Amino acid sequence: MFHLFEKEKIKAYIKEELNNIEKALQEERVSQNDFINQVSEYLLFAGGKRVRPLLFVLSAKVCQNSSKKDISFNLYRTSLLFEYLHTATLLHDDVVDSAEFRRGRKAARTLWGNQATILVGDYLYAKALRMASELSNHQAMDVITKTTLLMSEGEVLQLLNFDKLSMSEEDYFEVIYRKTAVLMSACCEVGAIVSQASPEEQRVLSSFGCDLGLAFQIIDDLLDWISEETGKDLGRDFFEGKITLPVILALRSAKDDDQRELRELFTKPNPTKDDFIRARELIEEAQGFSLARHKAEELLKKAKSALNIFKDSQAKSALNFIADYILERKN
Amino acid sequence: MFHLFEKEKIKAYIKEELNNIEKALQEERVSQNDFINQVSEYLLFAGGKRVRPLLFVLSAKVCQNSSKKDISFNLYRTSLLFEYLHTATLLHDDVVDSAEFRRGRKAARTLWGNQATILVGDYLYAKALRMASELSNHQAMDVITKTTLLMSEGEVLQLLNFDKLSMSEEDYFEVIYRKTAVLMSACCEVGAIVSQASPEEQRVLSSFGCDLGLAFQIIDDLLDWISEETGKDLGRDFFEGKITLPVILALRSAKDDDQRELRELFTKPNPTKDDFIRARELIEEAQGFSLARHKAEELLKKAKSALNIFKDSQAKSALNFIADYILERKN
Repeated sequence: MFHLFEKEKIKAYIKEELNNIEKALQEERVSQNDFINQVSEYLLFAGGKRVRPLLFVLSAKVCQNSSKKDISFNLYRTSLLFEYLHTATLLHDDVVDSAEFRRGRKAARTLWGNQATILVGDYLYAKALRMASELSNHQAMDVITKTTLLMSEGEVLQLLNFDKLSMSEEDYFEVIYRKTAVLMSACCEVGAIVSQASPEEQRVLSSFGCDLGLAFQIIDDLLDWISEETGKDLGRDFFEGKITLPVILALRSAKDDDQRELRELFTKPNPTKDDFIRARELIEEAQGFSLARHKAEELLKKAKSALNIFKDSQAKSALNFIADYILERKN
Repeated sequence: MFHLFEKEKIKAYIKEELNNIEKALQEERVSQNDFINQVSEYLLFAGGKRVRPLLFVLSAKVCQNSSKKDISFNLYRTSLLFEYLHTATLLHDDVVDSAEFRRGRKAARTLWGNQATILVGDYLYAKALRMASELSNHQAMDVITKTTLLMSEGEVLQLLNFDKLSMSEEDYFEVIYRKTAVLMSACCEVGAIVSQASPEEQRVLSSFGCDLGLAFQIIDDLLDWISEETGKDLGRDFFEGKITLPVILALRSAKDDDQRELRELFTKPNPTKDDFIRARELIEEAQGFSLARHKAEELLKKAKSALNIFKDSQAKSALNFIADYILERKN
């Protein structure tokens, strides 16, 4: 926890770094082709939080600070590759899920069609890998290509995951690892690599990013049930029959009758708003939400304490701040 | 041109190399996941000619022979990355084109749906890049990521290419460069790179692969009009309103009336078989087919003469043989 004044200083520092990332994003032309730029920018500038580029930049800086080495390339431009990678997966996800909306506005596919959306997704992915290759760094490329392989395999596994109610906690963690954590881990690890950090520093940041990503996704899934944000579309996961951590933990700890009822609610062909409210009550009763939140807290505690190996710096404070922020998110 | 006996020897050598590639393909598990393997293998083992891995292997060998250096990794396994890359693009193409058939059988998407096809395509692409990264070779990665960027940008350009009848010869060459030639060029260039060939040898093989790829696609497009293969589905390009080289050259050299008629045939909303036959007559009359064929011949002549810098070897004969074979293709 930070003091109020300290907190404002860190927030200002993060804001500055986010501005640098934003500026790089504005300056970088994704392609020579206007249409590709138009489709890409529609999603790239739709209010994304730039978590991934930010993690990369801060990880690079936390190591720079300790090793006093100079970075000979544009850190902010390089950070974009992680945003492009993430955006490519979102474009394909929207096609695969026939999504109508993304980040509160119409999904790209509803404006330009599935064909263009698939191909621009492919392009952004190729662009990200091209930028990674320009680093001329084996180790960075190794991490990034391992990451994209795990992610794309995970996408197929999710599509196949039919018998969702038998999903174990371990299965869930595997899903969110591939969906979110492995990329955040890569952002941090590659940040360390480009700063020529020690192997230990690289390992620590990789694991920090992984724990942070897992916690991030747990909270994301939690907010789908209990967000206090007005106007937020609650229960999307429930209505899609998607099982997340609160459900898994509730199914484990609920009384037999409640378990049965919860299972039934999840297998109803056309669940109603009342079904959602009842399911939420049952999960609440079995402490599914607080247990899930506790898991996220534990992961973030672990993540933050790992950062102790680094000397104090603004970047380190910022990484700690982001870890705290994940628990405070309201939407 | 080769003597008959010589030709049989080269054919046997190529067959052996193709067997080695096929064996590597059988041995390599694309993924740990059976479903991904099933979808991938359905297309991977649907009678592809393995042109791209073969070009890689032969290019590596033609340089090895001249520089006497050893290659410390499995050439055949590495060659697969080009087949995976190619297969990934085919899977996405089939989704984008809503294709019903591919290589004479049902397209993967008709069996497993668009969702799985998109995601397995993504996976194969990630797998190819992962294998490329395992080479730990900046230069190879540089060529491969440049190639995939050009290819994926080309896919979008093709989708956008609405006013097809105004397509120039230059536009056509840009399309087939990105569609076919740049990848074949990469196969050859990366083959040279992994053999630690000289910069000149790399350049020559890159350009050989490019010319070969352009000629390959010209002949492919030509055969869509005039294949002698019985049972071959002629005129797919015509019925899709796709303009290829014979049409462009015919439109340039035909008499005014014939030009007008040809344009009209290409803008009819529901062209018939008779329309196709008439269009073919008009192109034939304007020498569109022989002029296109001549372009391919010129490119292949240039490609083959560039190989003169290499000492004679079986691999060199095989590359020359492939160049000749492209003109002999009947389907």
